Amino acid sequence: MTEPRVTLAEIAAEAGVSLATMSKVLNGRTDVSPATRTRLEAELKRHGYTKRSAGRRSETIELVFHELESSWSMEVIAGVEEVAHAAGLSVLLTVSGDRHAPADDWIDGVLRRRPLGVVLVFSDLASPHRDKLRSRGVPFAIVDPAGDPAPDVPSVGSANWSGGLLATRHLIELGHTRIAAITGPEDMMCSLARVDGYRSAMNAAALPVDPDWVRFGDFHPAGGQNHARELLSRPDRPTAVFAGSDLQALGVIAAATEAGLSVPRDLSVVGYDDIALARWLSPQLTTVHQPLRRMGEEATRIVLRLAEGESVDTLRMDLATHLVVRGSTAPPAA
Amino acid sequence: MTEPRVTLAEIAAEAGVSLATMSKVLNGRTDVSPATRTRLEAELKRHGYTKRSAGRRSETIELVFHELESSWSMEVIAGVEEVAHAAGLSVLLTVSGDRHAPADDWIDGVLRRRPLGVVLVFSDLASPHRDKLRSRGVPFAIVDPAGDPAPDVPSVGSANWSGGLLATRHLIELGHTRIAAITGPEDMMCSLARVDGYRSAMNAAALPVDPDWVRFGDFHPAGGQNHARELLSRPDRPTAVFAGSDLQALGVIAAATEAGLSVPRDLSVVGYDDIALARWLSPQLTTVHQPLRRMGEEATRIVLRLAEGESVDTLRMDLATHLVVRGSTAPPAA
Repeated sequence: MTEPRVTLAEIAAEAGVSLATMSKVLNGRTDVSPATRTRLEAELKRHGYTKRSAGRRSETIELVFHELESSWSMEVIAGVEEVAHAAGLSVLLTVSGDRHAPADDWIDGVLRRRPLGVVLVFSDLASPHRDKLRSRGVPFAIVDPAGDPAPDVPSVGSANWSGGLLATRHLIELGHTRIAAITGPEDMMCSLARVDGYRSAMNAAALPVDPDWVRFGDFHPAGGQNHARELLSRPDRPTAVFAGSDLQALGVIAAATEAGLSVPRDLSVVGYDDIALARWLSPQLTTVHQPLRRMGEEATRIVLRLAEGESVDTLRMDLATHLVVRGSTAPPAA
Repeated sequence: MTEPRVTLAEIAAEAGVSLATMSKVLNGRTDVSPATRTRLEAELKRHGYTKRSAGRRSETIELVFHELESSWSMEVIAGVEEVAHAAGLSVLLTVSGDRHAPADDWIDGVLRRRPLGVVLVFSDLASPHRDKLRSRGVPFAIVDPAGDPAPDVPSVGSANWSGGLLATRHLIELGHTRIAAITGPEDMMCSLARVDGYRSAMNAAALPVDPDWVRFGDFHPAGGQNHARELLSRPDRPTAVFAGSDLQALGVIAAATEAGLSVPRDLSVVGYDDIALARWLSPQLTTVHQPLRRMGEEATRIVLRLAEGESVDTLRMDLATHLVVRGSTAPPAA
């Protein structure tokens, strides 16, 4: 793009507003009527206006979550913080929205805060939010554990389908045939990918999948516990459960303990994530390692490259998952 | 203090430098020689100069850790974030220094970033750092799980001694007499307070304390595991361990499992902190609840009050701890 850049003053003149008003909109100030804002946003977008990096470089990377869930979020935070710190930047942490996208008021805040870039832990970012960030020259990338790649947004995910396949294949190799799967919420792509990996492994081994063995949880321990209670009360109870998250695995083990079953003697359990405490549980948890920390690191590196004006070759990067075999899985009791 | 405020220009004139130089020092700029900076810092301090809040209010609270340790730090972060969010602020997360105080380069960074206030998760803040923050009118408070109150710094801690006492008294009431304690590092006041609570409970019950039963760990699982291995290999092994942190309790349980001992049948274990996962372990962990989230909330409230120009009545606030009895403790085997 070598055509001469249109100035903010020119866009303001064309839109029939003062440069001051245009500037307010650009900087996310709230003392402009919503109607005017919407109109001027459209003008900015139409002209492909990108704010010139003015004066002092911002010293923050903004990291946005929809919830701070202990073991899981901290891995991502630590990865983002490490790369940001090495670049002399601080991490601004904001919590907003639901697991799909940040809330509307977040975008106004971030435009005022003007971070060097934004790392989002969400499955997507609404299109108007993307446009606003782009027109202000605020680069962004998504850490996308949900695996729902937005078409034109740089994102870092991991191999969910492979993870589900590896977990299930491990249980099959141990000799299990009655294997249940408790995956995450049905509206998250990662849940579907993991459970499809499970199905593929079962199909490849010519093992039947009872529809009741496939459950959608919420990635939290209580969901795992409730589904496991139902599964374990069946006369033909499964001998192994692929739990879809380490927190759900804790819930499954709690339900087994309640039912007087010992893990792994009476029930094998595979988790997903490999949170820091997984190796400190008794028995140590067999789980699929999802490189959450590295996902945070990579997304931050992408944002830093974009902030330096470099281009990014691949918009979507899926980091490998691998199985970590520990003590919570064993051959089924004879 | 009703005496007329000295202006920055007056201090600069008296120090024989330009207002521009004085202003650079005040704003943490690095293009001033170290010697000049040190001299002018001293002048600012001597005059008790406090920067007038200029223009737009900062929108961030800076939260400083020395490490991001999964389960533990997240509770504090969540508390700080909640109060900051309710006040329309974002949380800037920085990692610096060791567990005692932030590193020297942190202070220059925070003076440039100019947060509305600072919440520190450290046992102390070096005196020159305190002076610098004060002279710039940046209020701060310490979330002090270590329990080492700095004399004139607002801090929020918790009742460590009582926690140690409650944990040990619970084990004594169950009938245990051979009770070991693995507390935290010897140079942290909270470790000493918890183990003193343990000693007091033992003394009150006229139970002897073998010196070898009192161990200093590192608050991490491996430390708990190593000490527990030694304790459990003794012929007169303890029947109960007060683990001083939930992570150490995980290590103790791992060592017991290794040794073929069942918790709580063969060994009772009490943790400390009550991390989010404590109730999802099997057996569920009996532990001392340390209100980490509320400690983060209270420290943030103090900073917000100070930022509004209000005074704080008590500099030191110790929140109560309480025992949560779950499944990892039971009467000793007959």
